[in-house]
This record gives sequence, structure tokens and C-alpha cells, in this order.
Amino acid sequence: MNTKQVDFSLRLALQDGEPCGALFAKEEIAGVAENVTEARDRIERGRGKGPLAFLELPYSYGSSDRRTAFGDTFSQTLGTIHEAANRIRAARGQFVHVGIGGSALGAITLVTALGVTKSMGYECPAEIHVPDNVDPDWIGELLHRLDLTRVYANVVSKSGDTTETIATFALLLEVMREKSNLSPAELRRRIFVTTNPEEGALAELARSEGFTILPLPDAIHGRFSVFSPMGLLAAAVAGIDVGELLEGARVADERTARAPFGDNPSLQFAALHYVGLTQKGISNLILLPYSNRLRTVGDWYSQLVAESLGKQGQGMTPVKALGVTDQHSQLQLYIDGPKDKLVVVFSVARHAETLRIPNSLASNSAYTYLAYKTFNDLFKAEREATEVSLHLHGVPNCRFELAELSPFNMGYLLTVLEKTVCILGELLSVNAFDQPGVEESKEYARAMLGKSGEQYDQLREIVAKLSK
Amino acid sequence: MNTKQVDFSLRLALQDGEPCGALFAKEEIAGVAENVTEARDRIERGRGKGPLAFLELPYSYGSSDRRTAFGDTFSQTLGTIHEAANRIRAARGQFVHVGIGGSALGAITLVTALGVTKSMGYECPAEIHVPDNVDPDWIGELLHRLDLTRVYANVVSKSGDTTETIATFALLLEVMREKSNLSPAELRRRIFVTTNPEEGALAELARSEGFTILPLPDAIHGRFSVFSPMGLLAAAVAGIDVGELLEGARVADERTARAPFGDNPSLQFAALHYVGLTQKGISNLILLPYSNRLRTVGDWYSQLVAESLGKQGQGMTPVKALGVTDQHSQLQLYIDGPKDKLVVVFSVARHAETLRIPNSLASNSAYTYLAYKTFNDLFKAEREATEVSLHLHGVPNCRFELAELSPFNMGYLLTVLEKTVCILGELLSVNAFDQPGVEESKEYARAMLGKSGEQYDQLREIVAKLSK
Repeated sequence: MNTKQVDFSLRLALQDGEPCGALFAKEEIAGVAENVTEARDRIERGRGKGPLAFLELPYSYGSSDRRTAFGDTFSQTLGTIHEAANRIRAARGQFVHVGIGGSALGAITLVTALGVTKSMGYECPAEIHVPDNVDPDWIGELLHRLDLTRVYANVVSKSGDTTETIATFALLLEVMREKSNLSPAELRRRIFVTTNPEEGALAELARSEGFTILPLPDAIHGRFSVFSPMGLLAAAVAGIDVGELLEGARVADERTARAPFGDNPSLQFAALHYVGLTQKGISNLILLPYSNRLRTVGDWYSQLVAESLGKQGQGMTPVKALGVTDQHSQLQLYIDGPKDKLVVVFSVARHAETLRIPNSLASNSAYTYLAYKTFNDLFKAEREATEVSLHLHGVPNCRFELAELSPFNMGYLLTVLEKTVCILGELLSVNAFDQPGVEESKEYARAMLGKSGEQYDQLREIVAKLSK
Repeated sequence: MNTKQVDFSLRLALQDGEPCGALFAKEEIAGVAENVTEARDRIERGRGKGPLAFLELPYSYGSSDRRTAFGDTFSQTLGTIHEAANRIRAARGQFVHVGIGGSALGAITLVTALGVTKSMGYECPAEIHVPDNVDPDWIGELLHRLDLTRVYANVVSKSGDTTETIATFALLLEVMREKSNLSPAELRRRIFVTTNPEEGALAELARSEGFTILPLPDAIHGRFSVFSPMGLLAAAVAGIDVGELLEGARVADERTARAPFGDNPSLQFAALHYVGLTQKGISNLILLPYSNRLRTVGDWYSQLVAESLGKQGQGMTPVKALGVTDQHSQLQLYIDGPKDKLVVVFSVARHAETLRIPNSLASNSAYTYLAYKTFNDLFKAEREATEVSLHLHGVPNCRFELAELSPFNMGYLLTVLEKTVCILGELLSVNAFDQPGVEESKEYARAMLGKSGEQYDQLREIVAKLSK
């Protein structure tokens, strides 16, 4: 295992002593440090068990010597993933990741942040599509864009009965069978199913049809599954170094498991949420990456926060934004609207591109101050301007800075965020791993689609009454 | 002028009499109807003047007999736009719309919702790119994707000094000059500048370089500029019928200007916001389109709400979501988290696609309930399930339904939303047309980029002090 320097920081905008009406003073954060640390310790004592099994994922692929709760479940998985990814890339394949919510966001986040593209001097030979909605127009668009002779798919549903995923898969399988002219044997080799191998209709179907199963054990909950085959196959197809990604996750896990409050980004970030929620009336969490590639980290963390902590009348509402763009759309509200927000900036210190602003508009002197600056300078100045404005208006904010976009740093960041949410669940005494509100609406949808059974008849009656 | 049937509805989920803990009863809405209507009447009396000039945009292109505040400003504009769009489409051009915030969102919204694509049996011959951020990596990506011999640009900045827009334009102009081999005359014909023709460095530059100016008069504020050349040139390039779009805007304007509360979507929607804000502790506005194509309506309305109403400690925080996808990410929070949300669904009754879910998974009986349903059925069942869940959990919600995605209906919807926000500004006694918080951060950014002048020296000092 390589030893890599941790290239990551969380900057807390603690404002004591400043003239700007600080909302979070050092003492307030320090006041909860012990509570937060104890919650972390309880989490660590439970690790590997029940819903905390996911913490062991980065150690479970044979890339460390540790024996984990998953035993041999994943012993073949990285081999299968690499073989599949190489095959798909060599064929210049169109890889369709079929999943929704926690079965898609991890893959989207990794591929968006790290998928190697032209601007890095290299273009990914494979195309990756993630149809995570059943909008007929959008699914129709996807079908028109696919060359069925080059399609590969990973169908992801732990339970095996996610309605949207099954519907999209049924359609994709049908068109591949009808229109691709692939032999049945080749078609089988093109389809991967990521599901609970122990039970569910999708595992059954995969076995009867001969599709390769990638394991998604029952203990792993969708929103904590980025380091499972759900995230890793798409990542490998995109050319992301999965080993580095998992190493970043392990290093972050070890640091957050052991380091004291002052050196522990998960503890500090959890403390910000906790003080905000319990003492400051902070109900909104603004996720503001200054990086188009990190935009989907906002989507991913939004799910973690909303589904894990949004229950029993509690919770913070995550709000996805993008810097610089949303300075010209949302910043007015953040600065001058209700003081119910914690702003979380994500930034990248070194961008791959070093584009310079040329002096092509020199015929007008109003623009000379920009000439020969880099886009990096401009992007950074805009971010700093926002941070200064937030600061001066007393809006609490903090920033995660990645030295660069790398698999190691992404593994690190996502792990810090996952552990923050586990700690918060413990602190707020909510079960961070269920989503009862969502389960209910899934049942209504099945009822309206005519699923048979007494429970569905009852649900249909409720709907009929409400629609009167 | 065609007479078109209005194909649009706003469904208010008023819950009186229901057993679910209604938050908005009919009487509560009725109780503010007079106030809201009076605010509308004040807006209508001010129309055409000052910042309310934008309401006259749909009448100002010579497509109606009305004389508007803009006089002859736009008399040539539609001709210029159609000529340019035809030229760009005939050349299979790459059209780059350079703008940010209000100078980009209208164009993005129209093109995303209505840009004609393959699934509608026809592919737009032109490509449209909207670099509305200065992320170096993203700008780098764009440059790699452009074939400079086919590039056309519309540079949009009313003031002419939007830092991000100018930087991107400087770069684009430089690479077009250096690498496209276009003659100076042809290059000039490829660049359009949408700016205040009366003042600003961009208008000056355009005149000295010979670029075509499309007018964006000082009275039109960015977030209310969708029906200006900012939105219309991109729309025309995408193949959108601009005449139908403007007609939809006019029909909506006339209805919302005159119709009484019970038949007036702007009045009703404003009332929901107003009761929510002033009586119910609603601080979050969840924008939940069930349509990938309407997703950017959420971005667009978010800016309208945030910048127009987010001031003096007031305002609702808009939260952008997407149905079905976010049922699997955010719905848990909406249903079971704090009761501080108003959920606004946008839906489309008839989708262009009529895809059916085939019976290809019939080898497993768990999936038979889905077979032969359409994706429309599925999408609709999911939306209804969400609405029922929200209803049963007492979460206030409403829905805008478009009969179909059409230029007329989009013009109609956006106008209803613009007028809602004007009415709310009046009701809440805030200036809906300024954005002082944003202006401040723009100045900080310029200071950090080294702009000269005493005011910038002072700002740099503040930053230096804070960064210590």
C-alpha cells in the first residue's frame, strides 16, 4: 500500500474577536467537542456491526490485511470489476448505470469529479450514462443516443424491487435483445446486476438469466454505498484508480476514528451542524462547491443529510448551489435573507487547467485589470469575495479544500462526510439508516400501478378519497 | 396573431375538511386574497415604468399593435435574431451563450425545456453551450469540444462589466482570432453582444470592433430578462418558435393582470407564499419538477425568489429538486423533517414519448405488475404517490401542470412566475429589483483581482485583515 500525504483541509470560519457579529464562536464549538467526540466513540465501538458495516467496505476487497464483517463476500469483486471495465473500455462501450437515489448518486459523484476527459489530455474511451429518472422524454433521449451493439449495463437495486430501476432495465434489456444482434451469450456478458445476492427477485433473475452478480449485502444502505460495487464499477469504467480511491477512504477512516477534535474534520464538521441546529436556529445547509466537477458532491451529501437526519420533525434542509454561478443567483439571499443558513464551500486548490485570460479586449481600458490573470486567479478571487461577504454579514461558513481532484482525495472527502452524518445521527438520537417516509410513498406508487394484494387495495382507496 | 387555448393549470392542495392536519385552509388563503389582489393592482398601475418595464417585453417586438415603454428599441430585433439563428443553424454552428446568473438562466431554461432533440424525431442542427461559470476545468473542457470554425457567440452583460462574462469572452475571442482562420469580417459576423446600448464598455467595444449589438435596456433586470434578446437568440438557435413563446407570455400577462383571485394563478401562488411566510413559518420553497426538461425552471425561479425577495432578513430559501429522482433522496426530509416547507410540483400531462415497459423480465413474477404500463403511467403514479404522502403528512403543496411542453405554455408559465414575484415584493415591502448583497461581493472580487482605485485599496485591506 502506498503511503500518501493527506492533501485535504477543513477550514472553520470561527469568528470570535471579529467585528462582524460572529454566529459561531470558538467557545461554542469547544462546548460541544466532548459530546461530539463521545458520539464518535460510540460509532466506532459499533463499527462493522449492523448498519455500520459499511465503514469496513474500503478494507474488504483484499487490498488490506484486515478481516472484515463481509468475510469473503468481496474477495473476487475487484477482479470482476477491473476485468469488466477493461473490456468495456477496450470496446469503446456505452456503459449504462441503471439505478436511482442511493443506487446512483455515488456513481454519478465519482464519475463527475474524476472521470478523465479531454481537458486532462486524455479522453475516456467509454461513455457513461446514468438514467436515474423515469421521465419518458429523458429515457427516450437515452435510447436515441445508444448504439445498442456497444451497450453494457450495471443494474443496481439492493432489494431488487425498485420500481423505476426495474422498469428502465426491462426496457433496456428488451431493446438489447431485439435490436443489437448480439448472441445470447454475449448479451449475458454485457449485463451486471448489483444487488443483495442472498435474496430478492433481481438476484433470482440474474441467476436464471446468467447475468454476473456484484454483491450489495443487505447491511449496506444505499446512501452509504459509494465504496461498494455500485460506485466502483462505474468509477473503473471511467478510468478512475479504484485502489487510490479506497486508500483515501481508509486514511480518512483511520484519522476520523482516532484523531482528537482539533485534528478531526468529521468531528469539527459534525459540531458545526450540531451547534447550528441546537443553538443557532440553522435549518438550511448550503452546499456551495467552487468546481463544476464537485457539483454532484452536493447532490450526494444532500441525500446523506436529508434521508439520514430528516426525521421526527428534525433535520437540516440541504440546498445545492454552485460557485461562482450562484453568486449571481442565490448569494443575495444568503447574505441579506434570514440567518438560518450554514454555508459549506468545497474548493480545489490546484485545477488541472491553467488557462490565462488574454488581452484580447485591450481596445477598451475598462478590462485591463483582468488581462493575463489566470482563470484560477479569477475563480479563487470570486470564492474569497463570497467568503468575505458571508463573514462580514455574520453568515456561518466553512470550507473543505482539496489540494487537487484525485481519487485519493475524493475517497477521503466522501468518507469524512459519511462519518459526519453517522456522528450526527448518534448526537441527535435518530436512526441515520432508515427512511420510513420514502418507503411509504414507494408503496403508494406500486398501488397506483395496480400491484395486487390487500395492502395495495387499501392504499388505492386512500388515494381515490383524496383525489375526489 | 393566433388564438391559442390556455393549456395550463395551478392546482392548490387546500386541505380543509381532510383528516391530515391541514396547514393551509381555504379560509386562510381567502383571508389574504384582497391584500394580494391590491398588490397586483399596484403593480399593474406601475407597469411599463421603471423596473416594471420588463412586463412590456412580449409586446415590444412589433408582434402586437401596442406602443410600449421601449418605443422602437426592439423594432429590428426579431429580424436580427431570426436571421442569425437561421445562419447558425444552416452552418451547423456551435453557439456559445456567454453570460452568468440572470444573463444565462433564461436562455438555459428555454433551451433545456424546448430545444428540439432526437426523441422528438428531429435533431437541432446547432449545438448550444452556456458557460455560466469560470471553473478553469470546465472552461477548458468547452474549448476542447469547440470546433472554432463553427463557433458563434452571444455575449450577455447589461452593464458590460460582469467579470466572469468578460473573462470568458476575452478567451473565446482570442482563440477564434488565433485558431479559426476566419476572416476578420466573418469573425465579426459571428459575434453578438447583448448589452445596454446606451452605456458601458461592452457596447463601446462592440461598436469599435463591429459586433452586432442586441439591446438590453437599462430598465430590464437580469432575472426578468428571459423575453429579451438574452433568452430569445438562444431560443431561436434551438429551433424554438419565439412568436409562440411571446404569445404565451402575453396571454398569461393579460390573465394575471385582470382575472380575479379565483381564476388567477399568480395571485393564488403569491398567496401561498405569503400565508406560508407570514402565518406558517414556511422558510423553504421546494421546487420539484417531474420532468428533466423543466429542471432548469427550478434554477430560474430560484434566482427570481432569492434575489428579489431575500433581503432585510426576509425571504424564502428555494430548494431545487427533481421528481422522481429526489423521492429517493429528499422526500424523507420533506415528509418527516421540520414543517418549514412549501412544495411546488411542476408536471407535464402529455409527454412526447410514449414508451412502454416491456415484459422482458417475465421470468420473475415479482415484476409482472409493471409489464405493459407506459413510462408515462409510471412517472405519473410516482408523482401522485408523492403528492398523497405530502398531503397525509400535512406538508403544504401545489402543482403547476402544463398540458405539454410547448413554447406557448413555457411563455405562459414563466410569466405567471415573474408576476408572482413582483406581487410578493409589493406585499412584503421589499424592492424586488435590486441585489445589494451581490453587488458588494462583486466589488470584493474586483479588488482581489487588483483593480485600481481607492475604493478597491480599502476592500483589499479588509480582506487582508480577515485572512490573517
